[in-house]
Amino acid sequence: MTTNLSGEDRVLDRIRRALDRGRRGSLPLGMAIGDDAAVWAPRAGCETVATCDWFLEGTHFLVDRHPPHAVGWKCLARAVSDLAAMGATPRCFLLSLALPGERTGAWLDQFLEGLRAAAGKLACPAAGGDTTRREEVLISVTAIGECRRGRQVLRRGAKPGDALLVSGRLGEAAYGLERMREGRGRVDPREPRLARHLYPEPRLSVGAWLAERGLATAMMDLSDGLSSDLPRLCRASGVGAQIEESRLPLAKPAKSDLRKLAPLAAALHGGDDYELLFTVAPTHVGKIPSEIRGVRLTRIGAITAARRIVAVAADGVARGLPSTGWDPFRR
Amino acid sequence: MTTNLSGEDRVLDRIRRALDRGRRGSLPLGMAIGDDAAVWAPRAGCETVATCDWFLEGTHFLVDRHPPHAVGWKCLARAVSDLAAMGATPRCFLLSLALPGERTGAWLDQFLEGLRAAAGKLACPAAGGDTTRREEVLISVTAIGECRRGRQVLRRGAKPGDALLVSGRLGEAAYGLERMREGRGRVDPREPRLARHLYPEPRLSVGAWLAERGLATAMMDLSDGLSSDLPRLCRASGVGAQIEESRLPLAKPAKSDLRKLAPLAAALHGGDDYELLFTVAPTHVGKIPSEIRGVRLTRIGAITAARRIVAVAADGVARGLPSTGWDPFRR
Repeated sequence: MTTNLSGEDRVLDRIRRALDRGRRGSLPLGMAIGDDAAVWAPRAGCETVATCDWFLEGTHFLVDRHPPHAVGWKCLARAVSDLAAMGATPRCFLLSLALPGERTGAWLDQFLEGLRAAAGKLACPAAGGDTTRREEVLISVTAIGECRRGRQVLRRGAKPGDALLVSGRLGEAAYGLERMREGRGRVDPREPRLARHLYPEPRLSVGAWLAERGLATAMMDLSDGLSSDLPRLCRASGVGAQIEESRLPLAKPAKSDLRKLAPLAAALHGGDDYELLFTVAPTHVGKIPSEIRGVRLTRIGAITAARRIVAVAADGVARGLPSTGWDPFRR
Repeated sequence: MTTNLSGEDRVLDRIRRALDRGRRGSLPLGMAIGDDAAVWAPRAGCETVATCDWFLEGTHFLVDRHPPHAVGWKCLARAVSDLAAMGATPRCFLLSLALPGERTGAWLDQFLEGLRAAAGKLACPAAGGDTTRREEVLISVTAIGECRRGRQVLRRGAKPGDALLVSGRLGEAAYGLERMREGRGRVDPREPRLARHLYPEPRLSVGAWLAERGLATAMMDLSDGLSSDLPRLCRASGVGAQIEESRLPLAKPAKSDLRKLAPLAAALHGGDDYELLFTVAPTHVGKIPSEIRGVRLTRIGAITAARRIVAVAADGVARGLPSTGWDPFRR
């Protein structure tokens, strides 16, 4: 039209074109970017699940280190991981994006490419958002999903005697972060260890498998590290836990990485793994397979009535486990 | 429990306690702050409507000028206004909040008090969120609502010949902003003009009334100003519009306010009014009352086939209307 497009509208158009590309026809009726709000029909027999997640320059990523493609992937993957932790299936997401003017070109294009890749892989299309100008890149993603009525898994259902399990390996993303810090020049995102830090994969299949069968009594995702997140699950359930360090599925770093970070410390305190931590009643623990769709499941301990978090070392000595994972408000 | 609460968990607890207070028993099952995600059952026969909105220190409010109570109210009211613009009814909201450490005390308490007041007034309870530490106050609110299947009003349905209407008066918030800028000392939020800037009221009743009856062909809320928002509605619908300046429902400022800002300029370009702009087919325009629940409705012009925005002055002279409302990316 002949009325001038404003700067904000130009940025919005760029976002809309990138995220709408290649998915025409597959969109639920009425779900499209560009109106005041997104609209969609909930699936019959399902409940709605929603979560929002910050991803901020300087706090959660470094704009001169992290490739914009990885920033786009990870901001959505982190939010979708919270859906996985409820046993939900993604439905759509909303993007709140604030950008400096100089990042509305190539940086934005690559960011959107990574975001679109994650949206495709996770079957979670963009439904709307809000954009403004800011001196730093600020991102908040709201991920919305669905789960069959009554099948969602909360943090609060763990009982004393339940087995405590995790998916995947713990600490791999922490080694990726170390690599990132060391790599002064350009990083190669295809390097496997780095990929675990840059391109986390939410455990949607594991979460949905457990939720569908009603096997997990409590579940959450590990974003800040086991030593920070396990107390949250225990607190919500009014219980404690004992973990056996010898059972933890550790990362297997290269020798050069071992000098800076021990695998046990990475597994206990390293964040960003986005693996699932869950509990299973003793009568059901035999029904848990050793892996689901190629993702290993490991029993690492048990829930206790005593409201403490205890780690038993390989030599049998038990000690309290301090929370030294990620905490933005720690002094 | 005896495990230490982290700093982040303490802030989350404070938020949870403030927003949960006084609403026990009225919450839909499973909707509660503190798990990985919020869960609720959609109402039968309804579609889900979701929107997110930035509210950033320095960009959308001044932390040393705007009372924290008003910041809490307005961040939710702005997002809910997008639901009103779809004809939807609010269901719940998610809060992404980043704060400096020194604002986790009294500032946070007053912010939460204002947020809780808005949540109560708008029947839109908190369902979850994400919190982190940051040097500035950053807020993103996701508002989620519902509308009866197929009853939502989009921006894209306006047709040439449709009447163009607005709710309330335009430009009142712009005078409130002027007052705020002038008031070097403390502001009195009870002053009516200032209240329109600090405590906007989303037009939920008007939006729902129009949507239920299927009377509006297109609708949006006025957040950036008529001259910026009207082109967006027209662009989405592939039409133009002609407005008659003599019909605009103007603010009635005090004489002292008139010197700085003319009422017509405030109505055309002033943002933050959160009134509804909507279109009605000529055959239905007689069914639109002069007010709904005390909110005046005014016909200000018509939709045209020519894709231009034209303003007809009181003397009958028509001219193109430039967009000079709020645009963060304008150079």
